[in-house]
Amino acid sequence: MVKRYLELRSLAEALTLLTTSFPPPRRTERVPLMQAAGRVAAVPIFAKYSVPEVNISAMDGIAVRSRDTVGASDWNPLTLEHCRRVNTGNIIPPEFDAVVMIEDVWESGDRYQIRRAAIPWQHVRPAGEDIKENKLVIPRGHLIRPFDIGALATYGFSSIEVLAVNVGIIPTGSELVPLGVHPGPGQVVESNTVMAQVFLSQTGARCTRLPIVPDDPDLIREALRKAVQENDLVVISAGSSAGTRDFTESVICSLGELIFHGVAVKPGKPVMLGKIEGKPVLGLPGYPLAAQTVLREFAAPLLKSWGFAPAPKYPVTAKLAQPLTSDPGFDEFVPLFVGRIGKTLYGMPHGKGAGVQMATVKANGYTHIPAPVEGYEAGTEHEVFLTTDPGSIERTFFFTGTLDPALEELANLAHDKGLFIHATNPGNTAGFLALGSNTCHAAPLVLPAQPLSNGYPSLLKSLAIEDLIFIHIAGIDMGIASRDGLGIADLSHARFINTRRDTPSRTVLDNLLATEGIDPSKVNGYRQEVHGPPAVAAAIRNGFADAGICTSGIASASGLRFVPVAREDYELAIRREIFSDPRIALLLDLIRSPAYRTILKKSGGYTISRTGMVRCLSSDLTLTEGPAPAVLPHLQQI
Amino acid sequence: MVKRYLELRSLAEALTLLTTSFPPPRRTERVPLMQAAGRVAAVPIFAKYSVPEVNISAMDGIAVRSRDTVGASDWNPLTLEHCRRVNTGNIIPPEFDAVVMIEDVWESGDRYQIRRAAIPWQHVRPAGEDIKENKLVIPRGHLIRPFDIGALATYGFSSIEVLAVNVGIIPTGSELVPLGVHPGPGQVVESNTVMAQVFLSQTGARCTRLPIVPDDPDLIREALRKAVQENDLVVISAGSSAGTRDFTESVICSLGELIFHGVAVKPGKPVMLGKIEGKPVLGLPGYPLAAQTVLREFAAPLLKSWGFAPAPKYPVTAKLAQPLTSDPGFDEFVPLFVGRIGKTLYGMPHGKGAGVQMATVKANGYTHIPAPVEGYEAGTEHEVFLTTDPGSIERTFFFTGTLDPALEELANLAHDKGLFIHATNPGNTAGFLALGSNTCHAAPLVLPAQPLSNGYPSLLKSLAIEDLIFIHIAGIDMGIASRDGLGIADLSHARFINTRRDTPSRTVLDNLLATEGIDPSKVNGYRQEVHGPPAVAAAIRNGFADAGICTSGIASASGLRFVPVAREDYELAIRREIFSDPRIALLLDLIRSPAYRTILKKSGGYTISRTGMVRCLSSDLTLTEGPAPAVLPHLQQI
Repeated sequence: MVKRYLELRSLAEALTLLTTSFPPPRRTERVPLMQAAGRVAAVPIFAKYSVPEVNISAMDGIAVRSRDTVGASDWNPLTLEHCRRVNTGNIIPPEFDAVVMIEDVWESGDRYQIRRAAIPWQHVRPAGEDIKENKLVIPRGHLIRPFDIGALATYGFSSIEVLAVNVGIIPTGSELVPLGVHPGPGQVVESNTVMAQVFLSQTGARCTRLPIVPDDPDLIREALRKAVQENDLVVISAGSSAGTRDFTESVICSLGELIFHGVAVKPGKPVMLGKIEGKPVLGLPGYPLAAQTVLREFAAPLLKSWGFAPAPKYPVTAKLAQPLTSDPGFDEFVPLFVGRIGKTLYGMPHGKGAGVQMATVKANGYTHIPAPVEGYEAGTEHEVFLTTDPGSIERTFFFTGTLDPALEELANLAHDKGLFIHATNPGNTAGFLALGSNTCHAAPLVLPAQPLSNGYPSLLKSLAIEDLIFIHIAGIDMGIASRDGLGIADLSHARFINTRRDTPSRTVLDNLLATEGIDPSKVNGYRQEVHGPPAVAAAIRNGFADAGICTSGIASASGLRFVPVAREDYELAIRREIFSDPRIALLLDLIRSPAYRTILKKSGGYTISRTGMVRCLSSDLTLTEGPAPAVLPHLQQI
Repeated sequence: MVKRYLELRSLAEALTLLTTSFPPPRRTERVPLMQAAGRVAAVPIFAKYSVPEVNISAMDGIAVRSRDTVGASDWNPLTLEHCRRVNTGNIIPPEFDAVVMIEDVWESGDRYQIRRAAIPWQHVRPAGEDIKENKLVIPRGHLIRPFDIGALATYGFSSIEVLAVNVGIIPTGSELVPLGVHPGPGQVVESNTVMAQVFLSQTGARCTRLPIVPDDPDLIREALRKAVQENDLVVISAGSSAGTRDFTESVICSLGELIFHGVAVKPGKPVMLGKIEGKPVLGLPGYPLAAQTVLREFAAPLLKSWGFAPAPKYPVTAKLAQPLTSDPGFDEFVPLFVGRIGKTLYGMPHGKGAGVQMATVKANGYTHIPAPVEGYEAGTEHEVFLTTDPGSIERTFFFTGTLDPALEELANLAHDKGLFIHATNPGNTAGFLALGSNTCHAAPLVLPAQPLSNGYPSLLKSLAIEDLIFIHIAGIDMGIASRDGLGIADLSHARFINTRRDTPSRTVLDNLLATEGIDPSKVNGYRQEVHGPPAVAAAIRNGFADAGICTSGIASASGLRFVPVAREDYELAIRREIFSDPRIALLLDLIRSPAYRTILKKSGGYTISRTGMVRCLSSDLTLTEGPAPAVLPHLQQI
């Protein structure tokens, strides 16, 4: 049996232990000024001299002694005996204490006349105006920014003392292969310590990544003992197997003390903290998203407690576009897509699979759900931390409706143009409703034969359908997939696999049964529902069922035979008001591009003759070709 | 005469010229994955293989063929012939298509019994769950983040192709000395190109900083010609003298084309753009804050138009704590301090001197005032871009009242503890009003002899004085400063220099004249006002006046003689409700520290016997020693 955690620490408790058990290592190093950006000053820095070091002129004009100017006026112009022509930046000789702007000076022969008294120090940049000798420039603990470097250079510094820390990073796991090696079946690239090094180096940490240690307690012990000697912090990355974690725990116990193993945080539950020779040993879980969470929520706060400046957190407040559920008792961290629909910032949670690194690659933020919370309803205002610049918000599109591989290919093309599409798959009805509530940019829909029937009329009545525009993506053939070429007549005796209500394939099936007069209760497997055409194809391929409704593309990709029964339209429905959005124009361009047609053709199962056509729903619920007149100006604009 | 700009471009117009005149250089380079963070992908990156490459188990349990499990139930347990024990992460052999969790399995001898059918693919992480072979990982143009590096490592990449750009940076100006050389009088360290290199390198630009070129058109021409040949962008940093800029302009014209010289932006007006051999040459002004503005508002947008990811902008909305004025017609960029008072985010503008680099070192943000705007009233909600992490907001304190060098020393000590004090000097009355409106954290006040008189009673009536707590900073001697030891009797005949109304020194003077029965109109110079004691001392030292009121410390620092006439209390007044704030406790600790007393003693002119004493104002307007009972719990907490 796999070892279970007897007791999970709360995140708050674990963080307190982490940030109070280890005094700062107080390591510093001197770096050239040019390399100091992003580092933290180890000591306060005082100016070596005043800047400017002498009085200089702030204007083009004449330097004067203010006492000589007393009494000058329009009625009593004064010709000065002692003065000096100066330009901006010129030194003011010590006998002068003011500058009269050249515009206020009348030249009289080789002398200057003035008509107003000069107040002492007018238009003079006094010595020390920027900074005075020995004054504090930056305090200890200051994170040095690029423009601070300019000031430090001006004030006489060419190198500075900054905080330093040595971090040893140990990858463990017999299933690991090093970076650059193609993993065999069951192997994975040792990427968590690569990520750890890049992440921790941002703070200026000097990271040493050690060779991969196989799942052998003696080898792990030796690597750990050595890493602790040479570093201020050791990060030990566990393989994903249960055994590895147990080795790490027992090795930490044999060399020092285990502070905790297991924290109520998701992902990242198997995180481990030990103390060996007074130094922290942080055990990183094997799943990549769990490792990320531990780096960000454990390693960064530890370094922060030591005075380092880890990656800053930039919060924005976003409305949840769909409900967000969470295990109560667990602090959860969930990748999020933040985008703007109209004036509202929406956050769209992504799946939580700890092994799916693409979730954070695609996301532009993440959110924290505190342990007591079971989840949030859609529409809740929620704090999201951005992982990329706020500009990415304006490049993120939300699609809600019915997904098909054709859309994924489109999203890839769009992504490559800097437009991020986040699509969810709750079905056609939810897509229409999201358009109605303005909580998506567009709804991908698989629409049946026209005029739209099967509940659409009542649904569409609640929408102002004249405000919807449909961009045709492709025609999709739906039909019966099977290993043996089964047809309609076989439905009453074959083992059938169904899809859930409101999916296009279910609608096709139900229409077909009605047309053919087959009682659904007579279909063996009618109640056995899987998630969609790919799952249908997999179930048939694996012998779980004999037949099901699926698209021709998916059937052929799965090596199944296919009997077509309906052709449906895959449409992207959008509100007319955002049709002139240049991002929509870009999408339309992509849909119409030869590259996309080529991809659809290669995928198989799509009819592309009308791809890119723009249509409207007429009052009889048919899609009418050609844009309605009101849309034309936008189209011309595109 | 200095050359004036005949025509200033608007910022918008200049940016359009900048970002449309130069196609991207399309330079790329391959970097090791570990060095790719912060770089921009030059080409889309597709996965080399699927991850996972084979089906693996998502649970500890048994791998089964789902078709074998059909029909299993509590009433019909099935003992499986074909199955395999698997742990999380183990490969699922191809003949199996589902995993039954170990908790749902009954061991029966050496075989396993199940009581529920397994849906195909349950608890299986299918091949390609994270990413499928040849699918897009990151698009071209994607800014690579540390956690992206982990994913790229997992997906088989050890190096990637990123955007690259060569930037040549030329410092010009005969007044410049290189980094690390102590500048003589009238010289400055060549720091703007240091700053330019650090700032531009953040985007991955390969910067070459050339040697300093003196103000000689032939030498500038030769340096520029060579730099254009070797780089995609040339930044030429002008000295602060007017002549240098003219040389740069004429050299650009002789080698190519001048696109603009002079933009209606402050600071940064002298910015220049040229085109030589089709490449951009950006002329950086000499004043450091002007150079910063041009790097951030011109160089960064140019690189952005080429696909680079310059420093992201993180906006926050803050209420202006004081009015912000601007020249209409100029786009202005002003350093700002952002801090929180209660729940409100306040922004406090800093002075706009283009030569004062400390303004941006101390600030945590900046704001943009568009050209048509003449300014904003205090209280306006305004967008501020942060230049450091949002955490700095909570470390920023606003002080409003009367400044004295004693406070500057305290701010330096606090700064070194990570607490940023931004203090403005509108006088005692404004300080009390700011406390009343809760728009400052504390008011530094120079309070006259007690009980408080001179308008304080009516002012204090509008405040709940029992809610104010006063921390004594120091006693300050005020008196008559002069070169010749003038005293009260000399005021009616000496040339006097006054300070403006509501400054403590003015109040001392007015009290003194009233006590002595001297008519202010008889005082020669009563209407000649300068800004405060330091300006008074300077005016006397320079012979502009004979006498004035100033503090003993400033008088002695200026080598002047001093006749004391009053002792005042320099107090930090705060609202009782924030007295328990740990930051106030830290300040109190600093005020009471031996280090601060030593500094005050060394400065001279301060009485420190009561430094750090906490007092309250009683109803008769005297400061009562010792904290009022209600404050004690807070003090004990400290």
